[in-house]
Parts: sequence; C-alpha cells; structure tokens
Amino acid sequence: MTQETVSLGEFTFECGESIDDLEIAYETYGEFTGDNAVLVCHALTGSAHVAGSRRRADTAGQAHAWWDDIVGPGKAVDTTEYYVICANIPGSCYGSSGPATINPETGEPWGTDFPAVTVGDWTRAQRRLLDELGIPNLHAVIGGSVGGMNALDWAKRHPDHVERVIVIAAAARLDPQCLALDAIARRSITTDPNWNGGDYYGDEDEPPTHGLALARQIGHIMYLSKSSMEDKFGRRSAGMDAGRDTFPADPAAGFFPYREVESYLDYQGEKFAERFDANSYLYLTRAMDNYDLASGYENDADAVAAFDGEALMISFTGDWHFTTEQSESLAEAFRASDTTTAHHVIDSDHGHDAFLVEPDRVGPPVDDFLASGVRGKAVSDTVEREDSGDEFAPVHTSLFSD
Amino acid sequence: MTQETVSLGEFTFECGESIDDLEIAYETYGEFTGDNAVLVCHALTGSAHVAGSRRRADTAGQAHAWWDDIVGPGKAVDTTEYYVICANIPGSCYGSSGPATINPETGEPWGTDFPAVTVGDWTRAQRRLLDELGIPNLHAVIGGSVGGMNALDWAKRHPDHVERVIVIAAAARLDPQCLALDAIARRSITTDPNWNGGDYYGDEDEPPTHGLALARQIGHIMYLSKSSMEDKFGRRSAGMDAGRDTFPADPAAGFFPYREVESYLDYQGEKFAERFDANSYLYLTRAMDNYDLASGYENDADAVAAFDGEALMISFTGDWHFTTEQSESLAEAFRASDTTTAHHVIDSDHGHDAFLVEPDRVGPPVDDFLASGVRGKAVSDTVEREDSGDEFAPVHTSLFSD
Repeated sequence: MTQETVSLGEFTFECGESIDDLEIAYETYGEFTGDNAVLVCHALTGSAHVAGSRRRADTAGQAHAWWDDIVGPGKAVDTTEYYVICANIPGSCYGSSGPATINPETGEPWGTDFPAVTVGDWTRAQRRLLDELGIPNLHAVIGGSVGGMNALDWAKRHPDHVERVIVIAAAARLDPQCLALDAIARRSITTDPNWNGGDYYGDEDEPPTHGLALARQIGHIMYLSKSSMEDKFGRRSAGMDAGRDTFPADPAAGFFPYREVESYLDYQGEKFAERFDANSYLYLTRAMDNYDLASGYENDADAVAAFDGEALMISFTGDWHFTTEQSESLAEAFRASDTTTAHHVIDSDHGHDAFLVEPDRVGPPVDDFLASGVRGKAVSDTVEREDSGDEFAPVHTSLFSD
Repeated sequence: MTQETVSLGEFTFECGESIDDLEIAYETYGEFTGDNAVLVCHALTGSAHVAGSRRRADTAGQAHAWWDDIVGPGKAVDTTEYYVICANIPGSCYGSSGPATINPETGEPWGTDFPAVTVGDWTRAQRRLLDELGIPNLHAVIGGSVGGMNALDWAKRHPDHVERVIVIAAAARLDPQCLALDAIARRSITTDPNWNGGDYYGDEDEPPTHGLALARQIGHIMYLSKSSMEDKFGRRSAGMDAGRDTFPADPAAGFFPYREVESYLDYQGEKFAERFDANSYLYLTRAMDNYDLASGYENDADAVAAFDGEALMISFTGDWHFTTEQSESLAEAFRASDTTTAHHVIDSDHGHDAFLVEPDRVGPPVDDFLASGVRGKAVSDTVEREDSGDEFAPVHTSLFSD
C-alpha cells in the first residue's frame, strides 16, 4: 500500500465553478499489469484507506481501513492479483480538496466557498487520477452505498473504460424518505450556531459538533434495521457507568433509563464529530441526494445502454436505505440492453451496514465475479437462467476474457 | 362541546415527586346517561380538542380539532349517543399542568423542575378527572399511537372500569428503532443553545425553535412511509417561490434543488415550533419511550389478564412506527386470557398517519365495535372465526350488554 496525494491542476466542477488545483489523496495496492486495475469507490464518509490495518494520520479516528475484510492479499479483491486504487472523493476531508482545505487565493479554508460537488465530479476526478497513473481501462469498478452510485456513474460515463461493475447496496437514486432524512441531517448542522455559515475553522472557533453528531446519528438509523437494532440493543438500559455527559440533558431525564441504543448513538455521534468535517457532510450528502442515474437520459436503461461489460448488483434484504427492490430495478436497467447482469440478493438482518459487516457473504460473489463474471460460482441472480450455456451467454461476454 | 379546566389538587407522579395542584384541561361532548362514557386519549402532541371545528385559543396553531372526522354527531364515535371526554395529558402544553405552566412556589414556569411524567400518570390523572365528573365506569376508552398506549394502560390499571378498549396504531412498547429516533429528537432540542437547560420562558428569551423543528421533522419521518412519501413528494423540486429562509443554509446548497419533501418538512417543523413547547416534547416522548405494557407483570398477557371486556386493535400495513406485527402481538396478549378480541388490519400506504388520515376506513370498525363489540359488522379479525356463534362467544361477553 502506498498513499499519495496528486495535484490534478485546474478542475471545473459540474456546477460550473472551478478551482486552480484539485488535489486527490489516493492509495494503491498490488502491481499494475496493464489489465488488472480495480477502482474501489468509498461510501459517504470513507477514505482512500480501504485496506491495511495501519492507522493513518489522515484518516484520524478511522482506526481500521474501511474494507479490510474484502480487500487485501488473498481476500475477495485480491491485491496479489489486482491493482487496487481507492481515491478520496472531492469534497471529503481525508486528504482531497474540499471545504476544509486551503483556498490558495485567501490562504484560509474554503468553507462553503468550495464549489458544490456531484457524484459525476467524483467520477471525473477519478478518471483524471487514472490518467495520471497511466491506467486507461479498468478491469472493474466496485462500490457500496453512495460508492455504488459512483460505480454506476462509471458505467454510464465511461462505458468503454470498465469491463465489470459491482454495485453493492446502492440505487439509481435515493427515495424521498432517505432524501428527507439527509435534509434533516443537514439542517441539524446548519442550525448549530457553531456552524456559522460554514466558517468554523479558526483557532478560536468551536466546530458544530452537536449538529454533526446529530446528523451522524440520523445516518446510523438508516444503516441499521429494526431487527438489527432489536438484536443489538433491544430496550436494555446502558447501566450506571454509561455517561450522558457529552451533551445537555435535563433533570427530569434522570427518572428514565439511559438505554443502550442511546449510548451507542451518542458514542457514534461523538466519535464521528471528532473525525469528520461538518461542511464535507453537507457537500457529500447533497451529492448523494442529487445523484440520478437517468439524468441526461430518457431513463436508467438508456443511461447504461452503452456499457457492454458485465454488471453485478448485490443487495441485502434488511436494507431499507437502499432496498433490494431498488437493486432489482437497477439490474433490469442493465438487462434492458442485454448487458450480462446478475443481481445477488443476500438475506441479512444487518440493514445497510451489511455491506461492511457481512464480508463472509459479500466476499465470495465479489471474488468470483471479478474472476469469472456472472458465471462465477458464488454469483447468484434473481432471474432463473436456462441451463443451456448458449441461451444464457450474451454476445457481449465474448468481448472480455475470463 | 364544553372546555373546562379542573383542579385535581395534590398529585404524586410515578417518579415520586408531587405538585400541589394538578390542573387538567378537558372537553366533553354529548350527554352522560350513566353508561355511555367514552374516553378518548390523544396522541403525543394532541390536545383535549378532539372534535368541533371552532378554533380554540388554548390549542393555538391547531386550527382544527384533531379527530373531527371520527368524533361528533352522527360520526363513528357519535356524540349524540356517547358522552365523550378528552383530557390534555399532564406534561403537555394545551392547558394541563406541564413544564410551561406556572410553579406556584416560584411564580415562574416549572421548566424542567416539573416532575417526570409517565403514561401511567396520564391514566391516573384521567381517573381522577372522571371521579370529579362523577363517571365511575367507561363504556370505552379509545386512543391512537401513544394514545393507544394510554388506552392499554386503562385496561391494565382499571380493568373493571372499562368495558371496551380500542387501541389504534399502537404497541405494548416502542421498538429500539423508534426509541433511537426519539432520543435523537430530544437531543436536537437539548443541544439547541436556546433550550438553555429548559429555561427559555422569559420575555427576553428565544425558545429552542430550531431544535424543536428538527425533532418534529424526525417525527414526521416516522408518521409517513416510503410509499406515502413517494406518492406525496417523489423527488420533485419545490419550485422557485418555495422559501428556504427560515434557517441557515450555505451558498453551495444553491446548486441543488429545494425539494418538495424538504419544503414539507420545513413547513411542518416551523409550524410545530410555533404551537408546541419544547420541554413538553421532551417529557411526552420520554413517557412514550418508557411505556411498557408488561411492566410490573410477567408479560403482556398477564398485564391485561384481569380485563374482561372486549378489545379491538386496529393497525395499518404501511405503519413502521407501530407495526401490524406489534398490534397482533397485543391481540395475542388479550386472547391469552380469553378476552374477546379482534385485530382489524387496514391495508394502507399512509404509514402511521393513517389513523388520522383514513377516517373512512377507521370509522366503521370503531363505530360497530362501540355498538356491538367484536361482532360488529365492520370489525374484522386476523383470526378466522368459527361460524358457530357458540364456539366464538366467550363467557366474558355476557358481562356487558350490547
């Protein structure tokens, strides 16, 4: 693993604004052989540090690499076989240019003067990064959650540069329930007086810790499911030694138990507020909310019609943030243009978190799909296939070697 | 309809604290004939003003009575037939004693010095009110949402005082997902600096409007469903004239649409913050979170074993705040002691809001159950009944006249 930061020079965002020098932090793993590059797209609050256990200063608070169970030597995305690239997305706060980095014109952090970012900007920055690295084509692009939207965007924007796309626990667009929760999360940040219009980076300033913690707590509700919360917490009290001292409470609260679920959320909220930038949270959730695969096309199927590689959707039955139905709809969009597609549904109570916490079930289909496409042994599909090989194999598969 | 406020004298809450004089605001409708009293329990942010279209000063902002579609002359709860009582619960802010009312010892609002309240306290206060009114027994008690918990509490606490109980869109206890959302909602209030430890009633003070609006928005997510939000809002933009001016936003937001779902939530949040008291929101959500039908008993069935009236549960398939499964579990608790029980499931996409917005489907089973018990024509059950009348009718039903 190496972590680098590259200057991509002037970059014009989809919103029309540009910055003189877009910096992108990225990590690579393994050796590039010309046709073995795999781009991993991180989720909302992830970083370039996808694998390797060493704690890195620039992912402060992320003690562990975020997908170490899946990416590494001998793992599903085997770094002895594939050359893996993961880049921190523009607008984030883990080394790439974003609201918390310095605006060279002022010498001060950009704050909310940083241009609005979109998922398309992430893809375009990744494309520029790969150009810098001398990687014209990708064997695969893979991502979960909004990282899955990023992967989809690759299939739409650069259909000829990607052979295989893996979209895990994602969708063509967020539904209004999730849009609503993200809007509330953003409002919790912007109504924190410490947010101060996005200007809170001074030595004397307090960042909007309370608002950001609330935003993260709302996120955690989306990442869990009713049944995972029942299993994890039930209605149990957290016990006497569990503090409730990090935010104000009122005397009347003392009569009631401090529950495990509250303790968990409070801990997660505080931990996150230490490691993440509030403005980045505004920027990245807006990018996610705004993403619509069909944008610029008639519909989802048209948007991916030019992609003639193979596509794998993975979804989880307990996920209500990005549902199995949404993944099936995506799979249908790919199938509409005869793209070789599989939708692998994993029966899991872990909610959206499953894409991170069920590596034993996510790994095998990913591994086999990277090696053999939808014909990979561990890859299942929602559509019954004819036993006859001829009936099943679409023409496109011959374009790529297994 | 008459609205009154009664002084119930000293009241000791379940937390052990007492106040010298508990005041309860209540309304009554119809004429009491000795056996026709129906107690309606309001939901979290409701008031005593259950029916009648006249705007009342003490339910400021609630332009309409909250259940006018169900309660009134010739309606499902027919006020020409039944004597209907609805009381504002202790801890609320619509006329009954609560954090915003004056502590006679200090001459200032109680704020968070008001004793913690429980659903049990609501029932006990209602019992005292009925004593004042000279009503020993109720033909029925009916409530939706946490008002349904209040109705359940009557069956548990005063099993001999109630002939029929109707529990709509409620549960024996909240699940951890809803506990979590309520905890986040409370945290959004207490981290608003204007909350100020609950002391914000002075002429110079600004109330914690932002925190309370956020709390309400989180509530609205629970009241709606994915499909009702899809129908109501989709991903549509709210249009140029929809303001985003009631709370801070950042320049980068301008690139993205202000969506209908956000506009709806912002409007609801602001409207609610004008009409409701933030401390009351803390108090009442804690009471709801804390409610557990089984508390003090081995299990739910034991808690309602002494009730020998008839019980009707109504639930909605699209409700994830209080699920159909939770209502079925309640129905099983009643059935365990051979209580004549029906669980009437309404297929609705309206989420939890259905209990308010589907009067045409809620009214008939309520109407018929009040008149004829579970044998009422419009009352359905999840359990197939034998056609034979003898097999079905439990002994208990003979205790009450139809």
